[in-house]
Amino acid sequence: MPETHVTRRAALRELLRAADLDALFLVDLRNIRYLTGFTGSNATLVVSADSEAKSVFCTDGRYLTVSERQVPELERLIDRASDKALMDRMATDAAAYRRTGFESHHVTVDQLDLLTENGAGIELVRAPGLVEELRLVKDDAEIHALRMACGAADRALADLLAAGGLRPGRTEREVARDLENRMIEHGADAVAFDTIVAFGPNSAVPHHRPTGAELRVGDFVKLDFGALVDGYHSDMTRTLVVGPPADWQREIYELVARSQAAGRAALAPSVDVTEVDFAARSVIEDAGYGERFLHGLGHGVGLEIHEAPSLSMTGTGRLSAGMAVTVEPGVYLAGRGGVRIEDTLVVRAAAPELLTLTTKELVVV
Amino acid sequence: MPETHVTRRAALRELLRAADLDALFLVDLRNIRYLTGFTGSNATLVVSADSEAKSVFCTDGRYLTVSERQVPELERLIDRASDKALMDRMATDAAAYRRTGFESHHVTVDQLDLLTENGAGIELVRAPGLVEELRLVKDDAEIHALRMACGAADRALADLLAAGGLRPGRTEREVARDLENRMIEHGADAVAFDTIVAFGPNSAVPHHRPTGAELRVGDFVKLDFGALVDGYHSDMTRTLVVGPPADWQREIYELVARSQAAGRAALAPSVDVTEVDFAARSVIEDAGYGERFLHGLGHGVGLEIHEAPSLSMTGTGRLSAGMAVTVEPGVYLAGRGGVRIEDTLVVRAAAPELLTLTTKELVVV
Repeated sequence: MPETHVTRRAALRELLRAADLDALFLVDLRNIRYLTGFTGSNATLVVSADSEAKSVFCTDGRYLTVSERQVPELERLIDRASDKALMDRMATDAAAYRRTGFESHHVTVDQLDLLTENGAGIELVRAPGLVEELRLVKDDAEIHALRMACGAADRALADLLAAGGLRPGRTEREVARDLENRMIEHGADAVAFDTIVAFGPNSAVPHHRPTGAELRVGDFVKLDFGALVDGYHSDMTRTLVVGPPADWQREIYELVARSQAAGRAALAPSVDVTEVDFAARSVIEDAGYGERFLHGLGHGVGLEIHEAPSLSMTGTGRLSAGMAVTVEPGVYLAGRGGVRIEDTLVVRAAAPELLTLTTKELVVV
Repeated sequence: MPETHVTRRAALRELLRAADLDALFLVDLRNIRYLTGFTGSNATLVVSADSEAKSVFCTDGRYLTVSERQVPELERLIDRASDKALMDRMATDAAAYRRTGFESHHVTVDQLDLLTENGAGIELVRAPGLVEELRLVKDDAEIHALRMACGAADRALADLLAAGGLRPGRTEREVARDLENRMIEHGADAVAFDTIVAFGPNSAVPHHRPTGAELRVGDFVKLDFGALVDGYHSDMTRTLVVGPPADWQREIYELVARSQAAGRAALAPSVDVTEVDFAARSVIEDAGYGERFLHGLGHGVGLEIHEAPSLSMTGTGRLSAGMAVTVEPGVYLAGRGGVRIEDTLVVRAAAPELLTLTTKELVVV
């Protein structure tokens, strides 16, 4: 989809002109992937504010063939020291890159020294977050990848349940591995992050890591997992119960489900991110569990598992149509158990679009 | 093993005094893990050249309990903005940290701005690579973890073969996942890197990624994989053949095996890294295949899958006893197939210690 990347670079060019920059020098591989489609592990890129013709991509010999295929429309430079080599190349035509922005939130102090030494005639200007700003609103290709990633996770959980994967005696680690294998079977390139599987009291730990603990009747089972497809991350959490739920389990489950629904309902263009958090949080606070909801409501997802915007009390900014976010309230009762329910959604003008399609009714296994 | 970390910090203290630094401010999580044992995803650390008492560790609330257990012997600060908070804390006692080194190869330009703004009275000095220098030579705890990681990979391959895991019709992706699951069964916390499984002509691509290609009689099978145990990475490659090997297969296999043996034999304290590369490379060059050996001979392994020293033509430095390295020559015949044989070893005064114990005879499945 080279035309997608051409479009994205054109959008960046607008930002560069607005910031009075002749070019942007990129080192972050996710930003470079966003702008070119390149998937390798070593690359730099300069995007000229002026034209595609002065934009140059650099990688090393391992990716010679791959880069020809993935980045056919840009001049390509092959050199293992991709930062130095690209700056050397720019310095031979310094007038074209006189005022060049760099990703000051990614470039290290030593790397800036190197670039400065090799960039005779080029002024290097701090320019953090420009591509991240573009990445806030997802285009169709990105939403397609997110949908595939969410689908792989949904189907993995359905298969796990159908195969009796949550039977007493299985360990958290076994269930985690099982779920991960099923995501791969359903087209995930890899898992999006370390899978959380938490049984019983462990479900009260928000970011529990799977152990050898065995599943027992009466346990909550909290599963927080996601798939990676074409570089895009899905993120979902479901909490199930083994055997008939106790009253306290039903109570906090219903509470978290109501909170999550309120959070989803608040997702709309122009809404401040703190308002979304508040919509979900106030449901839990009104029920007297405010101090048991220990984290923010959600976060953006895309080429990173956690990216802007942050849907939390301390987040900043307003939503726009096309942003992809999670909504994941939780209530955690130390020593007993906890519930979190999480979907990945896209903000839309009318109602948000659910990418996570698994039921949010309390599933009893 | 807190005494291990105390010893490592004492060694760093020596380096700081030699560099005329009052302290080192650390942001790299691997370096922090090395010095404290902390395994979480957010931390900063200042190590005082003067004493343990002026060394402070900072992480966020998610790791309150974990850090109490893992870093009991240091003052602990809990704050989500661990870089700013730790520098704020240091500024209240600026005289103790007057000349503080920072990891200029890890700290970003924006992060240095933040530290400078908050570090009134503290001079921040570029100090790259000090902890990496200590990490070059592994201590007993590290070699123990590497041995466990190598063992998990060895046993996973043995199980895969015993279970008939390399039967015609299986795909590269299936075999990769199978091998990975078996490493986890044998105690790996995770895989050390993306597993390479390459059948037939794909084995001629040094860093092939597993596809849906099916195994056929006559194929080379190249497996490059590793396990992660306690943060330490193992790395091994074996190339097998399905059915009776053809003459050309036997020929390049024997050649790579001889090259690999020569590389291992060259591992000894005080030897220049380029000499080790040459010892293995010259075997392949003398046989007329020099241009088919497309990469360096090996690399250090430890808390990173690729770390110093680099055993290659462009590497620098000499070996020391206790360094852990890979030796992995390869010959790749485009369109036909390739062979790579790789072990992880520890440099010792007498002979190198093999951590990878799987046979290097040509295995026919």
